[in-house]
Amino acid sequence: MDIWTFTQDGYREEDIVTNGNRFLVGNGYMGFRGTMDEWGRRQMAAVCLAGVYDQNGDRWREPVNAPNGLFARLTVNGADMALGAEKPLEHRQTIDFRRGVHKRDTLFEPVRIQSERFASMAEPHLLRSRLTLTFRQDAEAELLCGIDTDLWDINGPHLFDYTYKTSPFLLTEARTGELNIPVAAAQNASADFPCEETREAAETGVFRRLRFNAAAGQTYTITLAACVFTGLDGPNPGERAQALCGQTRGFAEDLTAHEAAWEAVWSASAVELHGGGGEAARSLNASLYHLHSIAPRHAQSLSVPARGLSGQTYKGAVFWDSEIFLFPVFVHTEPELAKTLLRYRIDTLPGALRKAAEYGYRGAFYPWESQEGGAEGCTDYNVTDVFTHRPVRTYFRDKQIHISGDIAYALWKYYEITGDDSLMREGGAEVILQCARFYLSRAHRRADCDKTELLDVIGPDEYHERVNNNAFTNQMAAHCMSCAIALADADTDFARALIQKLDYDADLALLREIEPKLRPVFAEGALIEQFDGYFSLEDASLAAVRSRVLDEREYWGTNHGVAAHTQIIKQADVVALTALFPSLFSDQTVERNWRYYEPRTEHGSSLSACMYALTACRFRRPDLAWEHFVKTASIDLSGGGKHWAGEIYIGGTHPAANGGAWMIAALGFAGLSVRNGEITLNPCLPEQIETLRFPVCARGKRVTVTVTRQGWTLE
Amino acid sequence: MDIWTFTQDGYREEDIVTNGNRFLVGNGYMGFRGTMDEWGRRQMAAVCLAGVYDQNGDRWREPVNAPNGLFARLTVNGADMALGAEKPLEHRQTIDFRRGVHKRDTLFEPVRIQSERFASMAEPHLLRSRLTLTFRQDAEAELLCGIDTDLWDINGPHLFDYTYKTSPFLLTEARTGELNIPVAAAQNASADFPCEETREAAETGVFRRLRFNAAAGQTYTITLAACVFTGLDGPNPGERAQALCGQTRGFAEDLTAHEAAWEAVWSASAVELHGGGGEAARSLNASLYHLHSIAPRHAQSLSVPARGLSGQTYKGAVFWDSEIFLFPVFVHTEPELAKTLLRYRIDTLPGALRKAAEYGYRGAFYPWESQEGGAEGCTDYNVTDVFTHRPVRTYFRDKQIHISGDIAYALWKYYEITGDDSLMREGGAEVILQCARFYLSRAHRRADCDKTELLDVIGPDEYHERVNNNAFTNQMAAHCMSCAIALADADTDFARALIQKLDYDADLALLREIEPKLRPVFAEGALIEQFDGYFSLEDASLAAVRSRVLDEREYWGTNHGVAAHTQIIKQADVVALTALFPSLFSDQTVERNWRYYEPRTEHGSSLSACMYALTACRFRRPDLAWEHFVKTASIDLSGGGKHWAGEIYIGGTHPAANGGAWMIAALGFAGLSVRNGEITLNPCLPEQIETLRFPVCARGKRVTVTVTRQGWTLE
Repeated sequence: MDIWTFTQDGYREEDIVTNGNRFLVGNGYMGFRGTMDEWGRRQMAAVCLAGVYDQNGDRWREPVNAPNGLFARLTVNGADMALGAEKPLEHRQTIDFRRGVHKRDTLFEPVRIQSERFASMAEPHLLRSRLTLTFRQDAEAELLCGIDTDLWDINGPHLFDYTYKTSPFLLTEARTGELNIPVAAAQNASADFPCEETREAAETGVFRRLRFNAAAGQTYTITLAACVFTGLDGPNPGERAQALCGQTRGFAEDLTAHEAAWEAVWSASAVELHGGGGEAARSLNASLYHLHSIAPRHAQSLSVPARGLSGQTYKGAVFWDSEIFLFPVFVHTEPELAKTLLRYRIDTLPGALRKAAEYGYRGAFYPWESQEGGAEGCTDYNVTDVFTHRPVRTYFRDKQIHISGDIAYALWKYYEITGDDSLMREGGAEVILQCARFYLSRAHRRADCDKTELLDVIGPDEYHERVNNNAFTNQMAAHCMSCAIALADADTDFARALIQKLDYDADLALLREIEPKLRPVFAEGALIEQFDGYFSLEDASLAAVRSRVLDEREYWGTNHGVAAHTQIIKQADVVALTALFPSLFSDQTVERNWRYYEPRTEHGSSLSACMYALTACRFRRPDLAWEHFVKTASIDLSGGGKHWAGEIYIGGTHPAANGGAWMIAALGFAGLSVRNGEITLNPCLPEQIETLRFPVCARGKRVTVTVTRQGWTLE
Repeated sequence: MDIWTFTQDGYREEDIVTNGNRFLVGNGYMGFRGTMDEWGRRQMAAVCLAGVYDQNGDRWREPVNAPNGLFARLTVNGADMALGAEKPLEHRQTIDFRRGVHKRDTLFEPVRIQSERFASMAEPHLLRSRLTLTFRQDAEAELLCGIDTDLWDINGPHLFDYTYKTSPFLLTEARTGELNIPVAAAQNASADFPCEETREAAETGVFRRLRFNAAAGQTYTITLAACVFTGLDGPNPGERAQALCGQTRGFAEDLTAHEAAWEAVWSASAVELHGGGGEAARSLNASLYHLHSIAPRHAQSLSVPARGLSGQTYKGAVFWDSEIFLFPVFVHTEPELAKTLLRYRIDTLPGALRKAAEYGYRGAFYPWESQEGGAEGCTDYNVTDVFTHRPVRTYFRDKQIHISGDIAYALWKYYEITGDDSLMREGGAEVILQCARFYLSRAHRRADCDKTELLDVIGPDEYHERVNNNAFTNQMAAHCMSCAIALADADTDFARALIQKLDYDADLALLREIEPKLRPVFAEGALIEQFDGYFSLEDASLAAVRSRVLDEREYWGTNHGVAAHTQIIKQADVVALTALFPSLFSDQTVERNWRYYEPRTEHGSSLSACMYALTACRFRRPDLAWEHFVKTASIDLSGGGKHWAGEIYIGGTHPAANGGAWMIAALGFAGLSVRNGEITLNPCLPEQIETLRFPVCARGKRVTVTVTRQGWTLE
């Protein structure tokens, strides 16, 4: 089997949404959904931009889709050769993970349409496609191609005041509604055959109309280049888009540069997995493909939305996924990318300070759903009740306070793994101190005893809202405090200056008092209660809870959800705690908690299985890990994951699972651990895997790790 | 108009439930619903016992209904003369508030059935009725009368192992399912005409069958006596019931004794209200009638359920209603009854200590719904969702912590008003100290500042669950703490011994530190925020919120309710605070808060209007008070109040509103205030009232207060 491609034969309307995700191409700057050349809004065709947001009225703020400059629709003798409108005799869609190229091959009665598409990994503003039309009969053909501005939007429209140009290249310019950010798309086209071309601006975009008389048996090739710039890239995006159009080389040359850039990516991070019949290797390749397609290589300070660049779901916001599930891949393979993610948090500290103040706290309370500038994208109502169609008050925004600790955790990890304190000096230390200050002001002491608590929180398991003393959260907060103390104890000039700048002396004294009281005590071998009172909840089986569901789209959490008052949890919580703080727990403790919580976990989040796989390796049961690895790695191939939360669409690609797949392979199966640039390995290979080989970047040098049943080597 | 009776003409099936409440007779030991003599389970006929509870399986524990010994069904020429089965030509139902007598008068084609019924105020175990049958044609008549054991139950059955006797009187004995409490009912009957009598035990009870040939124009009278005893009254309840049957005198003599007992009640508490066209006076009489019908005069230590003795709704449990809405009437009119209510709390302290420990706290956390022995009757699921029919997790049980303070408040009030410290010495002081200890252990200090908080509570307004720093709750808790401190500061031998007994020295020191921090600061003239963040909630109008309701039975509270995330509140909360702690607030402050909260109050609880009326008198706007007075006083006449919470029936009489009506009249309109037995008055009569005259018991002496437009006098 070809472990570097995925192909789907045949066309089914119900696959449109999933295939849009599965066959996505992207380069971090933008993502192009895996739709047909001739599709538009209805089929959720979209060019999803990274980091450009807009809010229309009081609806959710979400990322902006750029106009689609690769739009191309063929008419043959007046008949529309559009998949869905015209029934195909054959249809096949392929994604090439290694090269980052999407292909379609559709045979209609009169013509075969083939196309290739990529989002250039060499030039972030460039999309390219090549259409190859092979006629089976003489015909009058017309190809409408250009920039489609009739965009898929969940809470749009977001672009207004369109202007169009038709020369030298097609150009659309518009502005976002909220912040007036200009968004420009230009298009160039080149046909290898004589045709009559007209250009026109229409209500839904600006187009070329290529008319030609096609001959049976003859092949006609058209290449398109689409260039996208926004006001966030600098001034005059329209001119820059046109200029780039003018600079594009032939399709083949652009493809070569694109492929070379992908090869560089793979050389830094490809995991060779032998065994398991190829399926596992392909899933892992798919996972890393999707991750790299959205990694912000073009930026210095940007992070990755929870559904990548596959759409506007989850408001295009950055969650803890970035620090806990994506950061590990990057810090071990391309540390500059890890820095880019974390710089986003450093640069959005003002938003976190504002959010804390809004709730009456000090320090930095990072957004649960971070948008541009650290604006909180999470609303108070995140679910729509399927029974009443009314919005449901959820508490993700206000109570999921572990987010600040997660960010401090990643900042500290970067320092621990790389031994590089540059991020700390560039603002990371300040973030940690402000997060610790937030926890200080968020913590309570019981009035009549010495207990310190974090009350009314949501842990990783979102089905249980407003709980007290979530073990994960308390540990994450205490860890954050201890990092702040360690920074201060380093007693460098830098630390002293920072403490003075932040007026932090009193906080530091208080941290030394509070941190040991807040830090949970984990007794050896003990079962850890997820939060106060968890063990007193109804211990219903997952099947029992599932049987109470009346509508498959209903949300299991909030006060009314079927899981909320049972021990059924959405995702790894205590188990995530044992995964992230391995040194605090013996293998036996990890196993005991794993065995208690695993059957009680719905794995309703794509962030769950990875933690269970990692920890199963910890207690050397790769057989238990394997199933969770397969589930994690194959999620975007299989179209798995939840698509609905109440009545809200939450589908898309799953970057956290993509990163999780790498974590399981490298940190779990290979047992990779890097500290201060020193690599150690503790392999735990499942029987399905014979060899695992992957590069690791340590102290700026690339080392190749090879793990076999016999042992491991470093090159 | 007759201000002492209420009559309803005609029969409508939909009035059965309401009339059962409206025409109830009772004597504190038991309540007999205002149903027809011939009715049974289907029409919710019930003899509701005070203080006898039973739980069937895992359904809610609720009070036990005794078998109905006043059952009587007439057959004429084989036709059933039952209201509902046979269509009446005329029908009238009357309740005489002064005498505590229920009458029905039903004209069927062949016969007129008249009956009178009372629950003897002179003998708590005795129910009596007299049937008068006047025939309009010669007929063969049969009267089936006896003890009907086919009981109305919400969560029953509760009585098992029935045994029957037919002589010397009819007798049923049974036992409750949970605690094996014996329940016995005996019946005697006496006819003033010759008839053939047979006696029989059947599946649904034990009966006499009286057969006679009735003559047109002739009247036949039968009197029934039903006697009820339970195992809680002492041993051998069956024998005692039979014995009491043997001791009953004629109906007229029993009625005379009953009326004399009611006269004694009225002489202690009747409020003469002149003006308002009689309607107001009648409503007030009805309110006091219902209150006295359920007052536990037969007991030393018992309190009153939230729906009195009108059924099993609200689990027959005792709420804060007793201390805040009933206690004031009694402490000012029959202090022994006030003591009886409070002794119930003293005697159920062990239950409150258990409940606190169950939640991990120290001290006394009184049940939100107190049943026998202070068992918490409130469940975690108190509402059924009308959309999914699933139980909804509510937090009344765990978060409505003001209950302990309410009890301490009443204990302290008893002492303040009467100057009598006997209750304190008999356990009241211990209750206060244990309640204060509970608040100490329930309070939190912010880790990084000096703020002390009560987090995650529900105040009187139940539509907003799990709020922080509810002003009412914080004040009630601080008041409780200050009472505990005052008790200690008295430095009596008693106080010293108590502090030693309770090992309270450390708590006392902590109370002195915490109490001033917890006590809210109310700035002069300031609007008081009901809880942290209340003013940030959507300020939707009541009409707007109502328009969002999809099902008239849906519950407005909990996380999913239409009111929960708006400023619409169920009932007086801040306004109740200003009513209960008048000395803390200037008239201007009271008025400002009243005007803010009143339009935002749904008055979805019968406890609400009374507080608004009382406080309107405070700022001398009796016109604003009047509407709330009328609503409060007429609730059980009009059949007002909510009947459903989700899918749960919550109808019945409204003792708190009954007590509230008296409070408005005496404490509001007359401005009565008693401190240490000294009476002061500050009248604020609405224009509808010319004279108000009522007795007050102060220092054991009865004083009659007369308030007119010209002034007031004491006799």
